[in-house]
Amino acid sequence: MNSTIIAVDAMGGDFGPSVVVPGAVDAARERGLKVLLVGDRQKVEEELARIPLDGVEVEVVHASEVAGMDEKPSDILRRKKDASIQVVCRLVRDGHAHGIVSAGHSGASVACGMFIMGRVPGVERPALASVMPTEKQPIVLLDVGANVDCKPHHLFQFGLMANAFARDLLGYETPRIGLLSIGEEEGKGNTLVKEAYELFKLAQNINFVGNVEGRDLFTGEVDVVVCDGFVGNVALKLSEGLSSSMSRVLKRELLSGFLPKLGTLLARSAFKRFARVVDYAEYGGAPLLGLQSIAIVCHGKSNAKAIKSAVNMAATFVEKKTNERVVQAICANEELTRYGKAVRQ
Amino acid sequence: MNSTIIAVDAMGGDFGPSVVVPGAVDAARERGLKVLLVGDRQKVEEELARIPLDGVEVEVVHASEVAGMDEKPSDILRRKKDASIQVVCRLVRDGHAHGIVSAGHSGASVACGMFIMGRVPGVERPALASVMPTEKQPIVLLDVGANVDCKPHHLFQFGLMANAFARDLLGYETPRIGLLSIGEEEGKGNTLVKEAYELFKLAQNINFVGNVEGRDLFTGEVDVVVCDGFVGNVALKLSEGLSSSMSRVLKRELLSGFLPKLGTLLARSAFKRFARVVDYAEYGGAPLLGLQSIAIVCHGKSNAKAIKSAVNMAATFVEKKTNERVVQAICANEELTRYGKAVRQ
Repeated sequence: MNSTIIAVDAMGGDFGPSVVVPGAVDAARERGLKVLLVGDRQKVEEELARIPLDGVEVEVVHASEVAGMDEKPSDILRRKKDASIQVVCRLVRDGHAHGIVSAGHSGASVACGMFIMGRVPGVERPALASVMPTEKQPIVLLDVGANVDCKPHHLFQFGLMANAFARDLLGYETPRIGLLSIGEEEGKGNTLVKEAYELFKLAQNINFVGNVEGRDLFTGEVDVVVCDGFVGNVALKLSEGLSSSMSRVLKRELLSGFLPKLGTLLARSAFKRFARVVDYAEYGGAPLLGLQSIAIVCHGKSNAKAIKSAVNMAATFVEKKTNERVVQAICANEELTRYGKAVRQ
Repeated sequence: MNSTIIAVDAMGGDFGPSVVVPGAVDAARERGLKVLLVGDRQKVEEELARIPLDGVEVEVVHASEVAGMDEKPSDILRRKKDASIQVVCRLVRDGHAHGIVSAGHSGASVACGMFIMGRVPGVERPALASVMPTEKQPIVLLDVGANVDCKPHHLFQFGLMANAFARDLLGYETPRIGLLSIGEEEGKGNTLVKEAYELFKLAQNINFVGNVEGRDLFTGEVDVVVCDGFVGNVALKLSEGLSSSMSRVLKRELLSGFLPKLGTLLARSAFKRFARVVDYAEYGGAPLLGLQSIAIVCHGKSNAKAIKSAVNMAATFVEKKTNERVVQAICANEELTRYGKAVRQ
């Protein structure tokens, strides 16, 4: 394989091939990648026929099944051997692609990624990271849902992995890593966070800045925020919900009356920029950290722009060999992780 | 005591008597309450001298000490017997007031409330509730920080207590109670939430609507949202942080250019209404549920309006005898709570 090859689950997401195919093709054209579109051959080819493909390296790989949103991840893994999400993972495992993108069933994506592509040796729990917009630069929040019940050494490894990803994605030489808690001082938080703090304090080669609070997520004073998957998922969905609600309220208030309407018209360009700042589609998807290869999990509601961003993100991590730095960080802190595990149990 | 009497810690908050005194006096005048202003007599009387007091029932109670923000709650409780927060709690315990309001050290307020005023019999853990604005009616979120490590039967009791408070504060006959989780279906969430769900399902006399997600907090589809104090505190501070950040970004974008500036001028009234929807000062303070008497804990940054709202809130709960309904709900579900405790341990 010379150029970077990304395998994309074309059947995933609320809109399936109609947004995944154009999004993936756009990324392939812009960046000179090769994409493998995996799914029902007929449906994928129908979508391909609608768009110009000059100079784009794209290949369709047939998969006869689709993971249903109401199915359990374990059932999909065990029974649907030809589901598109299983096929993309096997393409990577067997050396036909360097990374995957999926907007389908996120539980199934995590399960297939873990069991088919496999974990980086030493990583106890892969974690799902979200790149969130803030007032200044974006931040990386993890875990946002892969692990709902965590132990301190899991949080510690999340921080080690996110360090490499944040560096390569956002270009920070030494990302500032914070632990999400309910007070800035050492010793604030629940038992999980207090014990994880002890491990971070002793860690090799990372820039741990201590606890951060919920309100610090959007001010840009930190680059990576570590928490368990329950807290992270609540935080992510709460942020999405609140920004949508605020936008709706603002719109409603602005449209109630003649003068406000005129004002809105004039301020339109400003609103557009405002909307972009809080646009979660900008970063496309959530990288699943700790797997042998790169995997990006997209929101079910993803549009073509989000799929394109996600394919680009996957290619960036492949080309920058981010996983090699994950391996280094995990190895360098192996003893400390073992210590954390022993103390806790 | 004929009229309702609220004891207010006049030394609390970032601005002390300069905002607490006028806020409390305003509430007393408007509602015909009596307020006891507790703190350094000289400083409180200086503030009282600045405002008209005709027809207002107000009394100063001297307290020679103040709880420092950097002191541990347990140290304040043990060593500062004449701290204003201790004095307000003793005034209630000894029958001189019906409820308290404090904008000081929130950990100390919780500790003094618990140990001086005492818990409602049967309540394992008092919980701090926050009344949050949403797109529609406000919701009650709890616990927002009194208990960072919870067990399922604690979450269950939080829901029982919030039911009574939400009803009396917001006027909902049967508040819809949701459990904060990371998926709507039963069986989604971490171990804590999954076990609490089982208790809620069997509860007497409450309208449990199942799991709610982070994004449901602001849509107004639920009236009470139950979570542990770590998750709740993160959620509360994240909401405050995000709404401030969004307001700042909007302002910055609106002020960059001539046309947007003109637009802003015209849309000003709409922005004012928008700001009110996301204004946390509207509800003043966080009620501490599960104590023998009513206690409202305010944000350190509270302005006079927030203090006034908090005093009003305390008076509402006193007058509606909310605690009697808390006692009833706790008793009616005593067996179920005991069952939850036994299964878990």
